[in-house]
Amino acid sequence: MQSAEAKLSKNSLMLVLRQYNLAVRDMEQTILLPSLLRDVPSDDELDCDAADESCPDLYDNYLMLKAVRNTVENSLVSTDDHKAKKHAALNKTLEPLLDSDPEALFRFHLRGLFSVMTDLTKKTQSLTGKYMDIIGETS
Amino acid sequence: MQSAEAKLSKNSLMLVLRQYNLAVRDMEQTILLPSLLRDVPSDDELDCDAADESCPDLYDNYLMLKAVRNTVENSLVSTDDHKAKKHAALNKTLEPLLDSDPEALFRFHLRGLFSVMTDLTKKTQSLTGKYMDIIGETS
Repeated sequence: MQSAEAKLSKNSLMLVLRQYNLAVRDMEQTILLPSLLRDVPSDDELDCDAADESCPDLYDNYLMLKAVRNTVENSLVSTDDHKAKKHAALNKTLEPLLDSDPEALFRFHLRGLFSVMTDLTKKTQSLTGKYMDIIGETS
Repeated sequence: MQSAEAKLSKNSLMLVLRQYNLAVRDMEQTILLPSLLRDVPSDDELDCDAADESCPDLYDNYLMLKAVRNTVENSLVSTDDHKAKKHAALNKTLEPLLDSDPEALFRFHLRGLFSVMTDLTKKTQSLTGKYMDIIGETS
């Protein structure tokens, strides 16, 4: 039986970030020929036409997962983020809802970061498994 | 002149979280009689009627800042968060925008957490200064 403390510690943001780093390290050590992932469609993009060049393949996912890991490792928030405009628009949507309640905003982002990191860890493990399938090894 | 690395390290999420913890510790060590903050209106709530009991005073802010620090220190995301419903509604708003792009969602929450922690650190320092004014000491 798990203690209440052990259950809580599973929710630690630091632990979730560490698990993600480990999953990406495992992915990098397994995927020795990332180019084999090129043109393999990602399951996540079901409504994406495989012939469409803008449609991300597994190789794009591989690069994205590594880029996120680099940001996590350095814990840096780049001020010239290329997606800053998108964020600005989102923040605009949130403003009237949360501007007067910084505690709610804090909990919202902490919870959101926790959730997206858990999701990205699963994606990393899934991608590693797919590579094993491609090269014909049982994972 | 600052090096590029030094500039970047200022943006570290870990550093921002640590600065917040230090600001709250300073606040706790300074504010020996928190009850003096009761019924002192908060500048943040300009459109709030001071006679209204639901209107937060500086004492409420003091408790909120400490609660956030406890969450930061433990880095825990409570699953029975009393504001979970509010978050669910917000996530619903974000879903169509970000569901297909976990990297954007990750950067959005990382940037958001960084921004709200910087804001809360300023609020903590401001509250400590107001307490000094109340007891008649120069901060």
